[in-house]
Amino acid sequence: MNLTIDREILIENLNTISRGLPSKTPNPLLLGIKIYVTETDLFMTSSNSDISVEVRINDPSLEIKEPGEAVVPGRFFIDIIRKINSRKINLFLSDDNLLFIKVDRGEYNLKIMDPIDYPKMDYVPQDNPLELEADVLKEVIRTTSFAAAQSEKRPILNGVNFRNEDGKLYVTATDSFRLAEKVINIDEYENFNIVVPSKSLDELYRSIDNYNGKIKLYFSSNKLLVVFKNVCFQTRLLEGTFPVLANLIMNNFPFILKFNKDELVSIVESVSLISPRDKDRDREITYSIIKLSLKRDRIVELSTQNQAVGGVVLQAIPTDIIANEPITIGFSSRYLLEALRSFMSTEVTINITSQIRPFIIHGDDDANLTQVILPVRIEE
Amino acid sequence: MNLTIDREILIENLNTISRGLPSKTPNPLLLGIKIYVTETDLFMTSSNSDISVEVRINDPSLEIKEPGEAVVPGRFFIDIIRKINSRKINLFLSDDNLLFIKVDRGEYNLKIMDPIDYPKMDYVPQDNPLELEADVLKEVIRTTSFAAAQSEKRPILNGVNFRNEDGKLYVTATDSFRLAEKVINIDEYENFNIVVPSKSLDELYRSIDNYNGKIKLYFSSNKLLVVFKNVCFQTRLLEGTFPVLANLIMNNFPFILKFNKDELVSIVESVSLISPRDKDRDREITYSIIKLSLKRDRIVELSTQNQAVGGVVLQAIPTDIIANEPITIGFSSRYLLEALRSFMSTEVTINITSQIRPFIIHGDDDANLTQVILPVRIEE
Repeated sequence: MNLTIDREILIENLNTISRGLPSKTPNPLLLGIKIYVTETDLFMTSSNSDISVEVRINDPSLEIKEPGEAVVPGRFFIDIIRKINSRKINLFLSDDNLLFIKVDRGEYNLKIMDPIDYPKMDYVPQDNPLELEADVLKEVIRTTSFAAAQSEKRPILNGVNFRNEDGKLYVTATDSFRLAEKVINIDEYENFNIVVPSKSLDELYRSIDNYNGKIKLYFSSNKLLVVFKNVCFQTRLLEGTFPVLANLIMNNFPFILKFNKDELVSIVESVSLISPRDKDRDREITYSIIKLSLKRDRIVELSTQNQAVGGVVLQAIPTDIIANEPITIGFSSRYLLEALRSFMSTEVTINITSQIRPFIIHGDDDANLTQVILPVRIEE
Repeated sequence: MNLTIDREILIENLNTISRGLPSKTPNPLLLGIKIYVTETDLFMTSSNSDISVEVRINDPSLEIKEPGEAVVPGRFFIDIIRKINSRKINLFLSDDNLLFIKVDRGEYNLKIMDPIDYPKMDYVPQDNPLELEADVLKEVIRTTSFAAAQSEKRPILNGVNFRNEDGKLYVTATDSFRLAEKVINIDEYENFNIVVPSKSLDELYRSIDNYNGKIKLYFSSNKLLVVFKNVCFQTRLLEGTFPVLANLIMNNFPFILKFNKDELVSIVESVSLISPRDKDRDREITYSIIKLSLKRDRIVELSTQNQAVGGVVLQAIPTDIIANEPITIGFSSRYLLEALRSFMSTEVTINITSQIRPFIIHGDDDANLTQVILPVRIEE
């Protein structure tokens, strides 16, 4: 292998590739980027147990003197390319299995691994794609993926359900205590019903964050291949049946409260300050159970108690209320915050059936986005 | 206790107070801020095993209706005051030992602790201060404190030595593998020789970061009190004799290499990319031993090897060289980086005696700042 390429091109593609590298591992050397050079193209691949990402580079700045392949220590390779100053970079594979990275005023050499040891990719055949705009795919991931379960108790809930029913694509995630669903219209395509690991979707989201064109999705029974620009992003699918939770969603709401979203977020955050703090600063704050009370005088109060620390009561001013009597519901402040943040709308509506039934949040300008939260039992 | 005060004033003072709150603790409730209200003033105090910080607030916005005192959960109190929107804040201590924080549209209540349980401060008497400009104090801390030992093996080395000898203040830190020393001229003052914990100095640095006036230092046998604005910052001193390391510093340098500082920093950082990475992302990178070689052709190379990953050789172009023969020295890249970053100068000089003697770094525009690094033995 012997090639020269503009550093900027390499960085841009390594940023994409880096999504497939695990962030933690006992042995960094086992985590390589596979570099594969043909007469005309430079391929780079990263992969972990869930996803694999491949880029194909065919840039005018790419000069290939000799094809070849190697697996290089991923993080080291990426950090070096990002840090060095050279405009051009030469990659040269020596006979003694060192990849030389020649830069202005010096060179690095990296011990490579044999590509034979590198996990083989089994890519979904690229025919009959479903096409989506990147912005649409980002939107469905952003509004649903956070609601997937984090714990491993029911693995199917670690995924996001993509279900096409005759041109309506239902994208649903739930951890069984809350549910997020976004429905979009898609082009004619055979019906499908798959569950994609939410972590894969989060990495996919980051990969396409700066991309605005079309994205092609290819399906197989156990894999999803996403193709955009010069990138192939493949993820495994979760096996099993995603629970149907239609009965969670009521249609009859005696209590409808409308709020300015940002104001409500700020008040819920303020109330959450009284939540117990986690001792371990690396983990997120343990959000507490908070209460929302519609009072007789049509005032809404958000409140919580922390046995060890104290309590708080703050008023929220609804922009509209439909209700005939007072009600109090209790719920995880984290669930409400994450649900609220998924909306782009200025105003959101909280639709309540009763103290013990799930309540539903909609946004004026978020078409077909439904956030559902199961209340917890509280003492009033 | 019952008072009203502008939120901005409270925040500014809590930011100072927060320096005395430990960041980690098994029981957050034990970590309180003591609030003490007289007829005219509001005092707030935080303290830990090393330092205590007290502010005295006498702001026009402060309205005291009733004096009193209480110890409130520190982090919760600070987070609440920072987050809420009110311009004015009312603090009210109820008969059942709750501190009510009344804000626009609501209120918090925090369980308080009895001030009797709060550690008593024993402040150094405020007479006969040494006066320093804040900028000067920041400079001596910034250029020395990082070189203090992190490990607890020789506790005296966890401190920074402040030694006044007839108007010359020597500020010195060392972990016995490297040493930082800054010398400044001070007003006439009795000689002293104290060792201040480097962690206390780091907190002091942050406390005075935005302050530009005079600072008063008061000394006792085991404490140092620093007074500025409305703040009293007191730290314990370390007991023991700080090692005299004058003999570490040579005067005869057969090898003198001058570099552009930023260029050299960038090259050392680039070489360090090959260093072993720490598995634990919270801890800093384990910097490797790197080599600096002056070659026969007066080229300087920085290089390192990582058995597991590979190696790197990068050239650095000195702006000046005084040397009659080649030499190679090995040292911790972290030590060199930290030393280099302490200089404000555009150009720095590395003064080398021999492969095994400490080498010394000076900066053209950093008067009386000396950084010393002990090389490690290397195979050439």
